[in-house]
Amino acid sequence: MLTLFTAPGTCAFATHIALAEAGADYQIRRVKFADNEQTSEDYLAINPLGRVPALVTPDGVLTETPALLVYVAQTHPTAKLAPVSDPLAFAQLQRFNSYLASTVHVAHAHKMRGYRWSDDPAAHASMKAKVPETMLAAFSLVEDALEGPWVMGEQFTVADGYLYTLGRWLEPDSVDMAKLPKVLAHRGRMNERPAVQRALAEEKPPR
Amino acid sequence: MLTLFTAPGTCAFATHIALAEAGADYQIRRVKFADNEQTSEDYLAINPLGRVPALVTPDGVLTETPALLVYVAQTHPTAKLAPVSDPLAFAQLQRFNSYLASTVHVAHAHKMRGYRWSDDPAAHASMKAKVPETMLAAFSLVEDALEGPWVMGEQFTVADGYLYTLGRWLEPDSVDMAKLPKVLAHRGRMNERPAVQRALAEEKPPR
Repeated sequence: MLTLFTAPGTCAFATHIALAEAGADYQIRRVKFADNEQTSEDYLAINPLGRVPALVTPDGVLTETPALLVYVAQTHPTAKLAPVSDPLAFAQLQRFNSYLASTVHVAHAHKMRGYRWSDDPAAHASMKAKVPETMLAAFSLVEDALEGPWVMGEQFTVADGYLYTLGRWLEPDSVDMAKLPKVLAHRGRMNERPAVQRALAEEKPPR
Repeated sequence: MLTLFTAPGTCAFATHIALAEAGADYQIRRVKFADNEQTSEDYLAINPLGRVPALVTPDGVLTETPALLVYVAQTHPTAKLAPVSDPLAFAQLQRFNSYLASTVHVAHAHKMRGYRWSDDPAAHASMKAKVPETMLAAFSLVEDALEGPWVMGEQFTVADGYLYTLGRWLEPDSVDMAKLPKVLAHRGRMNERPAVQRALAEEKPPR
């Protein structure tokens, strides 16, 4: 059994999709950001960064989305979620995931988490103001590169769930979606997948 | 033959070390940041992000350090630079690399590249002022986790070259090195490795 520590609307949903697509034996554990549970002593013992996702495996805790996505793919090989045995294709997949983690996610983080990089509230406001521009620029490179139905072409991979997950931030970040038609079409294809529908249903907190 | 597009002092040096450690057939091509060559049409055709590293392989161009490191390791298996066939150990390695790329490198980038996330010069100054603090915090998590001689314990991996590379930014970023004795000792061990010495010699521009 794998336990995913997650919170609705976060990048942890990429790993949630991967687990569902893999047919993994998993459960979801929601970290209550509203109660600052991510900075509690208990949670910091799981992830010293105080962030989601964290994946508790029988052999220890793993973090960082690009690592988790490949772990889920590699431990569920029949789902064919990552071309781990083809170094070139795998590097292309990893390039995409790394770009999402280091550039796209970071661009978005400047909307609400400017305090990580500056102590000046005026600076936070100026960072927030630039997010629609930086997110559009970051996703435009994805838009230009999207060719097949999926990120890697004909083969669905964990990168698709990651793109879908960060793509959910575009409208809240006031990005002009008319400039990202291929990203939008990709979202539509994702919404049709049973595993994505399952993950979406599981993501909502119980009433 | 692999061609690494690099620039002295950048994160591309991590891939340079990996190539040297792997015994790869490679050459170095310096991108002249002083001449803004990274934004030239020719270079943007290699990497649309206008950044180093980029690795030109016989089958196409690859980018993003975490992807390149695993590609070099995977295509030179006898060097044993990444435990690709052990999903858990590989995820721990990837976790480390992803943390360096998404958190540590990003913390450092706020010193000189604040324009990426804000249009306000005052905000850039406030970001730069916080870098010694954020870099110390980011490296403190590494310090706390370092146990063996190498990042992964007894086995040297591509993560060691990556840590060494970003660690070279600590003194320029005015971090109090007295708080990072294990990181410093790791640097000392790295400096003794012939492949690191070779890469250091190759990194310097010819007179």
